Amino acid sequence: MANPSPDTFDVVVLGAGTGGYAAAFRAGQLGMRVALVDEDKIGGTCLHRGCIPTKALLESAEAVHRVREKGAELGLTGHEGIGFDYGRIAARRDAVVKRMWTGLRTLVAKNKVEWVAGRGRLDGPGRVRVALHGEDGTPGGGGERLLLATDVVVATGSRVKSLPGFEPDGVRVLTSDDVLRADSVPPSIAIVGAGAVGCEFASLYADLGAKVTLLEYLPAIAPLEDREVSKELERAFRRRGIDVVTNARLAAETLVVDEAGIRVSVGVEGGESREVVAEVLLLAAGRAANVEDIGLETTRVEVERGVIKVDGYMRTAEPHVWAIGDVVGGLWLAHTAAHEGLTAVHAITADPDVHPIDYDTQPRATYCRPEIASVGLTEQECERRGLAVRTGKVPFQAIAKAVIHGDYAGFAKVIADAESGQLVGLHLVGPHATELIAEASLAAFLEATAGEIGATTHPHPTLAEAVGEAAMAVDGRSINF
Amino acid sequence: MANPSPDTFDVVVLGAGTGGYAAAFRAGQLGMRVALVDEDKIGGTCLHRGCIPTKALLESAEAVHRVREKGAELGLTGHEGIGFDYGRIAARRDAVVKRMWTGLRTLVAKNKVEWVAGRGRLDGPGRVRVALHGEDGTPGGGGERLLLATDVVVATGSRVKSLPGFEPDGVRVLTSDDVLRADSVPPSIAIVGAGAVGCEFASLYADLGAKVTLLEYLPAIAPLEDREVSKELERAFRRRGIDVVTNARLAAETLVVDEAGIRVSVGVEGGESREVVAEVLLLAAGRAANVEDIGLETTRVEVERGVIKVDGYMRTAEPHVWAIGDVVGGLWLAHTAAHEGLTAVHAITADPDVHPIDYDTQPRATYCRPEIASVGLTEQECERRGLAVRTGKVPFQAIAKAVIHGDYAGFAKVIADAESGQLVGLHLVGPHATELIAEASLAAFLEATAGEIGATTHPHPTLAEAVGEAAMAVDGRSINF
Repeated sequence: MANPSPDTFDVVVLGAGTGGYAAAFRAGQLGMRVALVDEDKIGGTCLHRGCIPTKALLESAEAVHRVREKGAELGLTGHEGIGFDYGRIAARRDAVVKRMWTGLRTLVAKNKVEWVAGRGRLDGPGRVRVALHGEDGTPGGGGERLLLATDVVVATGSRVKSLPGFEPDGVRVLTSDDVLRADSVPPSIAIVGAGAVGCEFASLYADLGAKVTLLEYLPAIAPLEDREVSKELERAFRRRGIDVVTNARLAAETLVVDEAGIRVSVGVEGGESREVVAEVLLLAAGRAANVEDIGLETTRVEVERGVIKVDGYMRTAEPHVWAIGDVVGGLWLAHTAAHEGLTAVHAITADPDVHPIDYDTQPRATYCRPEIASVGLTEQECERRGLAVRTGKVPFQAIAKAVIHGDYAGFAKVIADAESGQLVGLHLVGPHATELIAEASLAAFLEATAGEIGATTHPHPTLAEAVGEAAMAVDGRSINF
Repeated sequence: MANPSPDTFDVVVLGAGTGGYAAAFRAGQLGMRVALVDEDKIGGTCLHRGCIPTKALLESAEAVHRVREKGAELGLTGHEGIGFDYGRIAARRDAVVKRMWTGLRTLVAKNKVEWVAGRGRLDGPGRVRVALHGEDGTPGGGGERLLLATDVVVATGSRVKSLPGFEPDGVRVLTSDDVLRADSVPPSIAIVGAGAVGCEFASLYADLGAKVTLLEYLPAIAPLEDREVSKELERAFRRRGIDVVTNARLAAETLVVDEAGIRVSVGVEGGESREVVAEVLLLAAGRAANVEDIGLETTRVEVERGVIKVDGYMRTAEPHVWAIGDVVGGLWLAHTAAHEGLTAVHAITADPDVHPIDYDTQPRATYCRPEIASVGLTEQECERRGLAVRTGKVPFQAIAKAVIHGDYAGFAKVIADAESGQLVGLHLVGPHATELIAEASLAAFLEATAGEIGATTHPHPTLAEAVGEAAMAVDGRSINF
């Protein structure tokens, strides 16, 4: 048999964000010939303009908080003199990103994946046409290359969604892309949208001394979380001096942007309208999938409500074209994108062990303080679906390690099927919630019962005991609460 | 039917440490008439002289370390002026203990358990004779009370083990009880024994500026852990300036204790002997079960190698007498004691769902820096048992959240059965290892495979991803390493 053409691949992955590179690496591990195409750096939004730089900033902010506000309690001296240099915090943010990016680049070769630098688009099923970067990185400067693939995985990601009447200008009206490039902290900031991004920046800037106003259209911040979690977070935010406005109706026509900053009138459903004044305004009202200009029209791939339509194995309506990550909507989370990528690749190889993706087993994590994390259904969603459930809820203040940690606002809440006891949802708000949810994620994947989680020995003293105690509380049998 | 006598119980629990109170509370929840007997405060060694005060001290030490050694990197200013006031650190330690103790006391009534303050001892099966405290707390000042019980749970715990030739004097030769009462940090300390207690105090005192010498008889520190974990910890300790001596043979006859401190000659197997000089010496060579003077001789309970002999349901050789916690040896861990307590109580009620205790699913945790935690078998134990296994190991430096955290020495190591893939052991050394092990504990309890752990979505970016990546690495399929 002749060698295949250098432009012939088993799989071409279009987009090298977290989902795209996970799919490409796994395909390489499974022995497939793989090309990974992107006009940008490997790592995508998450690494370069999302999760990673944000969490790096939050780590520094947490350190500032710990010393300033907990230093005395923990027995430190000299903590009154602690400040921060945002320039250095920003430099560390960039250094972390660069380090992880450098590591990722070495994994391309390790996994025998061919990196194709350029802008790719579908040119009919099984064909990806790439406008190659030039040697110096100039877009389109390297001519064109046609890649032939048995399967194509579309992983083109998403971008910050704009809000009608609020045109980002990079100076006063900002997106998360802008604030993640900034090397200073504004004295005041109004944040539109209290989802994960809005809550994380509200928490970050509050720790760094900014006056923060958090505006949410829906009746609760972190509106996708269990209502009890949202309430606890709102209480904590208010205690920290964050001005939280729910049911906020922004009057775009009243927006004034000038040298002093921004002013906008905000109506509150059922209340009086007020004027919000801040140095800058951050738009955190969600993301839009990158479905445009990637050649979907040359295939039978269907786009519905702005995202590519897929089945549980990430199949589009066009055979052998798959789509994963933000471009299919779903949870808009990097780890879910990676999971979707692995699902697609294993489906491509017809792996008998591959499971269709189940979003109820996907963890969600928000890195504000207190942190929030969850898996499965909220109690409100259970009510909507008419599911009979039992719940157990234990506050972190009953958990020795949380009291030792010193920041112990919050709780663990376990929701189980009333009859079978199977885990339906697990919700955490409190210290290191984003780490503790991993156990719940495994429990959901293995279809464990609350009884099994409660019967598992949690090491003492750990914050993880909150999960075990809440699981036992489902049967009224918690030990330490 | 006449009311039972006020001295007649379904269950009498002798000893109110973590295992004892867990057993008593659960028995109360299951509707049994329960007495909980102790001459000391509820909470036992763990709460008053063990885990809790130690971890409170370690939390402060970690805060000192973070600011002093990571402050500049994290962008803090003024961190050069950070110090600590050990008096305040010790006061917080005591406040944490008092707070948890206060909470526990309220749970006695909540769980309908009768608290009997005094020294109890078995007086034949089904009989516990208590020398009651007086109103003012005077031991024996309240006369005697005979409790009649259908079942008795012995949970009398353990005490610090002495070392021949090293008599604790509370001044120069100390036990963990002594150092947990101290309100100052010695300039230098020699620690005998590098198990959990020895490693935690070595780490604590090193952070607080003491010159630490850590002496271990066996060839590795943390000798019960996987050898790779021990090596990583030893490297980290040495980098931190801790003088680690393994294969150490203390010549008790050379011990000099005077006003300057202690001096002792230490032979090193295969090397030259040296003199260790320090302000104080801490004995951390293990614990001894409290089997004496509790009336075991009035029953058929068997003691073997210093601990009470039990089956997987915590049954002793005497029907209706059960034993749990340190008094049965096993792992000498508070959470395992609690698990044994619940196992015994559910066995007493003949609960069909009760499992015999499986020590291979019990997590182990040591709170030094880097933290270490594990569940199941080490690779060395697998070799001894002739088990064919596959392993996956991923360093924390491949994990974005660890790099963000800044302390990223260490790794996750998954050991799986070569054929079935079932989890055999999971070993962690690195940031927040003690929290991350909870997932492994659930996996072990549910008999999950490495494949299932790897197929579970771990939220990004979290330290918990190390566990998922190591599980995938068992099949050579890690994504980020």
